[in-house]
Amino acid sequence: MKLKKLISTFSERYDYLVLTKGPNLAYAVGMPDALGLVVDLKSGYSVLYVSRLDYTRAKAAAPVDKVVAVTSAEVPPRRPGEELVVASSLSELVKGLKGNVASDNKEIGVDVSGEVAELRAVKEEWEVEAIKAALKITEEVYARLSQMRLVGLRERDVAALVYRWFIEDGADGVAFDPIVASGPNGAYPHYRFGDRRINYGDYVVVDIGAKKGVYCSDMTRTFALGQSGVLRDAMYAVYEAVKAAEKTAREGIAAAEVDKAAREVLAEYGFAQYFIHSTGHGVGVEVHEPPRLSATSRDTLKRGHVVTIEPGVYIEGVGGVRIEDMVYIDGGAVVLNRTPHII
Amino acid sequence: MKLKKLISTFSERYDYLVLTKGPNLAYAVGMPDALGLVVDLKSGYSVLYVSRLDYTRAKAAAPVDKVVAVTSAEVPPRRPGEELVVASSLSELVKGLKGNVASDNKEIGVDVSGEVAELRAVKEEWEVEAIKAALKITEEVYARLSQMRLVGLRERDVAALVYRWFIEDGADGVAFDPIVASGPNGAYPHYRFGDRRINYGDYVVVDIGAKKGVYCSDMTRTFALGQSGVLRDAMYAVYEAVKAAEKTAREGIAAAEVDKAAREVLAEYGFAQYFIHSTGHGVGVEVHEPPRLSATSRDTLKRGHVVTIEPGVYIEGVGGVRIEDMVYIDGGAVVLNRTPHII
Repeated sequence: MKLKKLISTFSERYDYLVLTKGPNLAYAVGMPDALGLVVDLKSGYSVLYVSRLDYTRAKAAAPVDKVVAVTSAEVPPRRPGEELVVASSLSELVKGLKGNVASDNKEIGVDVSGEVAELRAVKEEWEVEAIKAALKITEEVYARLSQMRLVGLRERDVAALVYRWFIEDGADGVAFDPIVASGPNGAYPHYRFGDRRINYGDYVVVDIGAKKGVYCSDMTRTFALGQSGVLRDAMYAVYEAVKAAEKTAREGIAAAEVDKAAREVLAEYGFAQYFIHSTGHGVGVEVHEPPRLSATSRDTLKRGHVVTIEPGVYIEGVGGVRIEDMVYIDGGAVVLNRTPHII
Repeated sequence: MKLKKLISTFSERYDYLVLTKGPNLAYAVGMPDALGLVVDLKSGYSVLYVSRLDYTRAKAAAPVDKVVAVTSAEVPPRRPGEELVVASSLSELVKGLKGNVASDNKEIGVDVSGEVAELRAVKEEWEVEAIKAALKITEEVYARLSQMRLVGLRERDVAALVYRWFIEDGADGVAFDPIVASGPNGAYPHYRFGDRRINYGDYVVVDIGAKKGVYCSDMTRTFALGQSGVLRDAMYAVYEAVKAAEKTAREGIAAAEVDKAAREVLAEYGFAQYFIHSTGHGVGVEVHEPPRLSATSRDTLKRGHVVTIEPGVYIEGVGGVRIEDMVYIDGGAVVLNRTPHII
């Protein structure tokens, strides 16, 4: 948890820091369900406000000086030692703070949500390890799927196995609902899963990510159950686009350059117009967070960023191909995946 | 989808309706991922704004007059017939509207989110059928679990089966992450699942809900793997509290009265201080929505409300018991569940 980092970042400029957004609370103290965190930046004293249902868990687990349960009505404390305050919102609780307040909530003090997002984008080693632990669970599912006969299963049967294996293997949840898009359904990047049965000749886009603790993973492979047609060419084009983007990505480069590298390869293969989304995004306590790797991104890649590289080709009425790795940005891009790109 | 109902509700008072929140978009047009909906309330003409990735799906499925894809940068349309506008926010798109604008977004026009929530709380018959379809999938999982030997399984193994069976049986997702809280973990209403192995003598609180289309279900049963101790008494007290609350709930009664009925039964059994949350909540496109059934609720139950009845007892260091039904409010409360309360 990054409470110390937040304090050192903001203590020169502000007297208090107030966080209210789930992902920022996950990042700061590991409790996405908390109602709010108030830190006295001069002394470092921190108070976490939680629902009374979360009081005991927060007392045990959150690295803060004090935990306070919040209720919206006058009721007596019911747990030993429970400190209970009546308030209908965090704004109400913090309006007594005297001094400069930095907050991720526009209604409270100076909005520093952009700065918090930038801090979150740069991962420390232990955060990268947490992401790798989540990714390991995800990769294990691809290993199992690659040994299975997918033909005849419905997309939802594959999705059901993904959920089951994630949780059995130690995931604390899914980073997002699985995508299992077979045949023509692969043409829609936002498709989830449905009743369609996977057939011979299908390309099946499987985009999944386990969550471990509060950290996410995000990965895609496309299973080719046929070896002919335009999607075969697309598979190789996407594979080359991934390699080009990963070769381009490094500390100090514009994120838009990485997008451009992938896009140029797809253009060479004649697929430019079929790559209808951006090349990647940061991953951390949220599955989509800064930086953005797109044509219009103004972000620069920094050492410590963990981002996806995920070009794709989507042809309506035919299907789709997407390959997605996670990479750690250093002098170059360190690919965190171990699964082959074409499986 | 309730677009017509929204139009008839607001057309007398406003010229335009703008919806921007996922659950309201799910309710209005079945697309929680859309960026926004703009309705000319005089003519009824409706425009849905979506990500370009969702354009084809929205064109095919959304009951609106026009679908427009939004991009944040100048790029050419890439799909046949695609109408593409450049905008960084919906506020930017709708600032040209001349007249009174009603919106669920504080930054756009008059905030009618409370009124939309009230509309959403009162379900039509087809919405109740959708909720029942989701609940049926959930109940099937309890039927399977009740025939299994739970002792020796980890909580996460049970959670993994829940996910798998939901999706295999036709769910489109989970309404919320499953709760499988065994033994002492049952004392925490917000516990999810962990590595603990279920043991002889445990009480295991299982709180799960499948989602079908955009509608949610929410249900709890507590599996008693022992028959002695304070939790045995708690089980009967909670059962009686459920019955009392369901007998009390009906059209026209204060929601707080239903909470009181449950609370009084638990008090008779000496468990008043161990019931640390409210008795229930509405369920629809969101798993928690109005009305609230709590001691401080000002809501009145209306015909068409679908709410949970879910008293519980939570004893730290020992465990917990919760039983949760879904009921439809009519002259009385029609219990939608078919699974026995004690299984």
